Amino acid sequence: MKIIGIDSSGLVASVAIVEEDTLVAEYNVQYQKTHSQTLLPMLEELKKMVELDLATVDAIALASGPGSFTGLRIGSATAKGLGLAMGVPLVEIPTLEGLACNLYGTGELICPLMDARRNQVYTGVYQFERTTGLPFSFRLCRVLPQCAISIGEIAQKCNEYGREVIFLGDGVPVYKEKLGELLEVPYSFAPAHMNRQRAAAFGFLALQYFREGKYVTAEEHTPEYLRMSQAERTKGKGKTYGTDQGNDAGGCGSGK
Amino acid sequence: MKIIGIDSSGLVASVAIVEEDTLVAEYNVQYQKTHSQTLLPMLEELKKMVELDLATVDAIALASGPGSFTGLRIGSATAKGLGLAMGVPLVEIPTLEGLACNLYGTGELICPLMDARRNQVYTGVYQFERTTGLPFSFRLCRVLPQCAISIGEIAQKCNEYGREVIFLGDGVPVYKEKLGELLEVPYSFAPAHMNRQRAAAFGFLALQYFREGKYVTAEEHTPEYLRMSQAERTKGKGKTYGTDQGNDAGGCGSGK
Repeated sequence: MKIIGIDSSGLVASVAIVEEDTLVAEYNVQYQKTHSQTLLPMLEELKKMVELDLATVDAIALASGPGSFTGLRIGSATAKGLGLAMGVPLVEIPTLEGLACNLYGTGELICPLMDARRNQVYTGVYQFERTTGLPFSFRLCRVLPQCAISIGEIAQKCNEYGREVIFLGDGVPVYKEKLGELLEVPYSFAPAHMNRQRAAAFGFLALQYFREGKYVTAEEHTPEYLRMSQAERTKGKGKTYGTDQGNDAGGCGSGK
Repeated sequence: MKIIGIDSSGLVASVAIVEEDTLVAEYNVQYQKTHSQTLLPMLEELKKMVELDLATVDAIALASGPGSFTGLRIGSATAKGLGLAMGVPLVEIPTLEGLACNLYGTGELICPLMDARRNQVYTGVYQFERTTGLPFSFRLCRVLPQCAISIGEIAQKCNEYGREVIFLGDGVPVYKEKLGELLEVPYSFAPAHMNRQRAAAFGFLALQYFREGKYVTAEEHTPEYLRMSQAERTKGKGKTYGTDQGNDAGGCGSGK
């Protein structure tokens, strides 16, 4: 099966075409342009480069949130438009899980961090568990589901887990020093080629989600903001946003 | 420092711009076009997208071999041309090491495989060793330097190491079944988003190489074929190609 992956949840704009074990094409940009300038031209570029017949695509995978409100809306609008026009379902991948998949196969805890402003980060804690049987593979498991908390809170949780942690995401440059002060466990930061959203990783995870029946129609899809927008807060709307218990990874031993 | 990475050693064409901990842009394609059709247009596309000023680039990193003879020559010619025109050095990254860096941080042995035809694979065995100090990081270490051997020989070596192995590279689809028959150790295959050359990973490794003084001028660079070409073999030229003991990773404990 063939999947188009898109991500515009953070600073990176990313598109990919994944077909089973093959990454057909991938284009990632981390630059000061807005995603509305980059995302569709990037997809058009890939489409031309690999002479993609849209009729062969089975689903659209997207980083469904959390993330930048504007970024998520651009990603959702793009995915909805594609899904409607192409008549294919959407696979909503929680942003933090897609990020964690960059570190597929590592034995340490994985803690993606996205700067959520107002002294918070969008974060979560994940680990890869080895499957039995041969060839073995690794399955992403949730230790802490994605949520919006302070850097102090996530550091405290990592200290409580008592295990080595690898951090990644655009929250790292913002909170690197602070983490150094707060952490009591060994920690590391993922290097350049692993430390930001990749639509290819979202596409990889989407293959698994799709097979588990976790997909929606383009009409059904809504982004997962996790927090109220500035406008909603100003208007004092009452909707509360807590820890996402939704469409996360799971089904693993200690990760539940 | 800012590095342009390029790779055309195998089935993938890949270009990337890496600046310290930031992957500014990356473009990977695995499609039936020849690299002479893809590589430079892809770089031009990235250059435009991130408004790259070539005067700010410090070095060109490239997959210097082994790999497809034609692919390596396209990559080398491109890198030489860029290096000469821009007046910057080239960082030659052994192809198998760059591939191994896709699995940065994993605890298993890493065995990249490229189909070398004539019943051989270009391969090697690597592992990541954790550095001391905080934040810790992982350093690529050579267990078996890159070489051209049969699939039986590399399987036997893996059995002798007696440890779990993750395979990746375009040799995997060719030899997957055979490996299943030959291996006596637990094994795994890297998923779509990790299993082929990424110029971003070559760029990451090049930052380390450059700081260690491992770079050459554009004039000095030659690709590392590891084997004689068809034409050389037919003419019976005497040059022998053995295991590459050259510009590999190393400097690690058990990996030496």
